[in-house]
Amino acid sequence: MEMIDAKTKVCVLLGNPVEHSLSPLIHNAGFGELGINCVYVALRVKDADLADAMRGIRALNIRGASITIPHKVRALDHVDRVDALAEKIGSINTVVNDGGVLTGFNSDGMGALKAFRDYGVELENKRVLMVGAGGAARAIAFSLVANARLRELSIMGIVREEVGELVDRLRETTESRIQGEAWGEEALRERMAASEIVINCTPVGMYPRTDEIPVPAGALRKGMLVFDVVYNPAETKLLVDAARRGCDTISGVDMFINQAAAQFELWTGKKAPVASMKKVVLDRLAKK
Amino acid sequence: MEMIDAKTKVCVLLGNPVEHSLSPLIHNAGFGELGINCVYVALRVKDADLADAMRGIRALNIRGASITIPHKVRALDHVDRVDALAEKIGSINTVVNDGGVLTGFNSDGMGALKAFRDYGVELENKRVLMVGAGGAARAIAFSLVANARLRELSIMGIVREEVGELVDRLRETTESRIQGEAWGEEALRERMAASEIVINCTPVGMYPRTDEIPVPAGALRKGMLVFDVVYNPAETKLLVDAARRGCDTISGVDMFINQAAAQFELWTGKKAPVASMKKVVLDRLAKK
Repeated sequence: MEMIDAKTKVCVLLGNPVEHSLSPLIHNAGFGELGINCVYVALRVKDADLADAMRGIRALNIRGASITIPHKVRALDHVDRVDALAEKIGSINTVVNDGGVLTGFNSDGMGALKAFRDYGVELENKRVLMVGAGGAARAIAFSLVANARLRELSIMGIVREEVGELVDRLRETTESRIQGEAWGEEALRERMAASEIVINCTPVGMYPRTDEIPVPAGALRKGMLVFDVVYNPAETKLLVDAARRGCDTISGVDMFINQAAAQFELWTGKKAPVASMKKVVLDRLAKK
Repeated sequence: MEMIDAKTKVCVLLGNPVEHSLSPLIHNAGFGELGINCVYVALRVKDADLADAMRGIRALNIRGASITIPHKVRALDHVDRVDALAEKIGSINTVVNDGGVLTGFNSDGMGALKAFRDYGVELENKRVLMVGAGGAARAIAFSLVANARLRELSIMGIVREEVGELVDRLRETTESRIQGEAWGEEALRERMAASEIVINCTPVGMYPRTDEIPVPAGALRKGMLVFDVVYNPAETKLLVDAARRGCDTISGVDMFINQAAAQFELWTGKKAPVASMKKVVLDRLAKK
């Protein structure tokens, strides 16, 4: 960490709650590694205060912000410009302040996409099953179809309207085959049997309920690639079971680090030191 | 400096410019010394953005703020409550945010008063000359008359209306004898001859114009106490000349540290580690 002086720039996280976020550790590790005089702090912002918080970012000359739950959708209404992908996704997780002009981005889906690429996963012509149809699912789905020609993207979720709306919006933007289906264990088994890649976009398995798994373990099979958006723990029950059954696995830690790295690069204009950022997260998660 | 994590609280400086402020060094040294998980950053805020900046402090759950030039007077209109002394002074340099309720204080004058006391200066029944009638003069004058029964307080300034207004307002709040006079070298010599304490409240002598002095050196005499609000350099030409002529001297560094210590105590509820805070300032000033 650099010495904080009067020239130190500031980036912030807006969310509620924020007390357990790992983002300050990640970004401050990155600033420290590159010797950038910037500090990142987490700020708890109530729903009713979001508009003032966003105006405050402008007025206080804060360089950038991460936006997290519950503000990702509504924050979109308080920026001056929205990146095209974030517009499709319908939410932002990143704000860049250029001299009082706020631009909103969504780096979640790009973080997942980069994780696939870092692991050498070929997405072209693959059948992909996403479990869950909430914010993470939207971000990943739009990023995938915008950047890869999938054979099929199936979305299975508990909230039928959410699935339907996501499928409809995706179909407007891609020629890939998009399927939506309501949650059901039998349907899930069938869909898994027909997919090469399974992405968990639900919070199932997240700390402290680490013994839960979002799909039937018996439907995991050798050669399948399993991606979990949950990053705490780094190795969820889903990933442990998947690896045991011969699947390739990608942890949510990679998506989490990559979305943060994309934010870091938008704020600083410099290549994020991903290895250092990942180390600080794994070290902290290992302490639990 | 503690590791910054998601529980780190935030205090800020609002001013324009802020790039050369020593306040981040002071407050972060204090937080570090006491192991308080809080960080202090300086934020450049334009005049037109002050209202949004103050609302931002509330919405972003920022614990406290220092207010500096040019916002000290106008910031008073954007807090929910104003301390009685700050109300008289007509400006605030400190904001405390208690769950969204902003209270404004002015610690400048109290900082000067504490410096007098730390040096064992007896103010009762003394004739005090203040040179300058701006913000610093107002803060010190109201703090002095509220806390000590002076024999006489004389104020000499270049802007005749400013002197007149300050004298009128002081007379409403004290039974001490208050005198105002327009600037003039001859008048200044006469007034100095009749005073035991001289306080420079002008920026004359401040870095980079360190060879300037706000009063005729010849009028400084043994036994006189000379106080300079300028703290950069720590030993101004006024103080050097005064010491050479046998005056006792108090540097603006003491007032500066004491006003910061008062802010620190308002934000943290803990006794400020004044020695560490002063050391970091003197070290930095010595580097110039």
